[in-house]
Amino acid sequence: MAKDRPISSSTTSDTELREQGSVFLPRFDSQGLVTAVAIDHGSGRLLMLAHMNAEAIARTRETGFAHFWSRSRARLWMKGETSGHVLRVVEIRVDCDQDALELVVDAAGPACHTLAQSCFYRRLTLAGGLERVEPD
Amino acid sequence: MAKDRPISSSTTSDTELREQGSVFLPRFDSQGLVTAVAIDHGSGRLLMLAHMNAEAIARTRETGFAHFWSRSRARLWMKGETSGHVLRVVEIRVDCDQDALELVVDAAGPACHTLAQSCFYRRLTLAGGLERVEPD
Repeated sequence: MAKDRPISSSTTSDTELREQGSVFLPRFDSQGLVTAVAIDHGSGRLLMLAHMNAEAIARTRETGFAHFWSRSRARLWMKGETSGHVLRVVEIRVDCDQDALELVVDAAGPACHTLAQSCFYRRLTLAGGLERVEPD
Repeated sequence: MAKDRPISSSTTSDTELREQGSVFLPRFDSQGLVTAVAIDHGSGRLLMLAHMNAEAIARTRETGFAHFWSRSRARLWMKGETSGHVLRVVEIRVDCDQDALELVVDAAGPACHTLAQSCFYRRLTLAGGLERVEPD
């Protein structure tokens, strides 16, 4: 466990508390969401990007499986709830200003609904088109 | 954004074109932005998360250095324009529905304005607090 950092009441600002402190203070946007990125625990590969509200964070921490808020369907969902391709969460990291989360995960299958291992399966070419990065 | 849903096997739709095609069709949100994640080329580590509008994408492709749109300052900025800690872009990847980009980068210095190597320098503990993941 990291020790709580000493905080000077005279100089501490909300920004310092959020960036340097040991208190989890997610900075939700106007829709009550933070951005969440899933990274594969084994390979370190970026798997997917989604959004979480407070309930998604709570459910993820309670169950150990990644839950997100679907903006298009306006509901909480567990990744893999229909496909079985769940993401077991090894660790949750938070960025400096606490408006983004990194979920370090073990993936039970392809992370993308297209059945690609990662949602980021295409790269931009110099000509401005897209090409697949690998045959997955 | 990853979603659990079956892939349509019927006729080609806009969704299929965007997900399976070779045309770069970024899906900007109502503010004209896509989410961008910077990944270190050497280590594969997640460095930072920011947003890009069409101009930031264009400037990044033209110059080879990561540009973003600052929502708080409402202006285009080049990462490292004041600190010198620029991000040289090796490759740009796009996710399935083209509303998120992965920038594979060589970082000239700490990616975070706090001078941490990555903005994601703290993890959530079981007790619900934050602890630093390493002394960077």
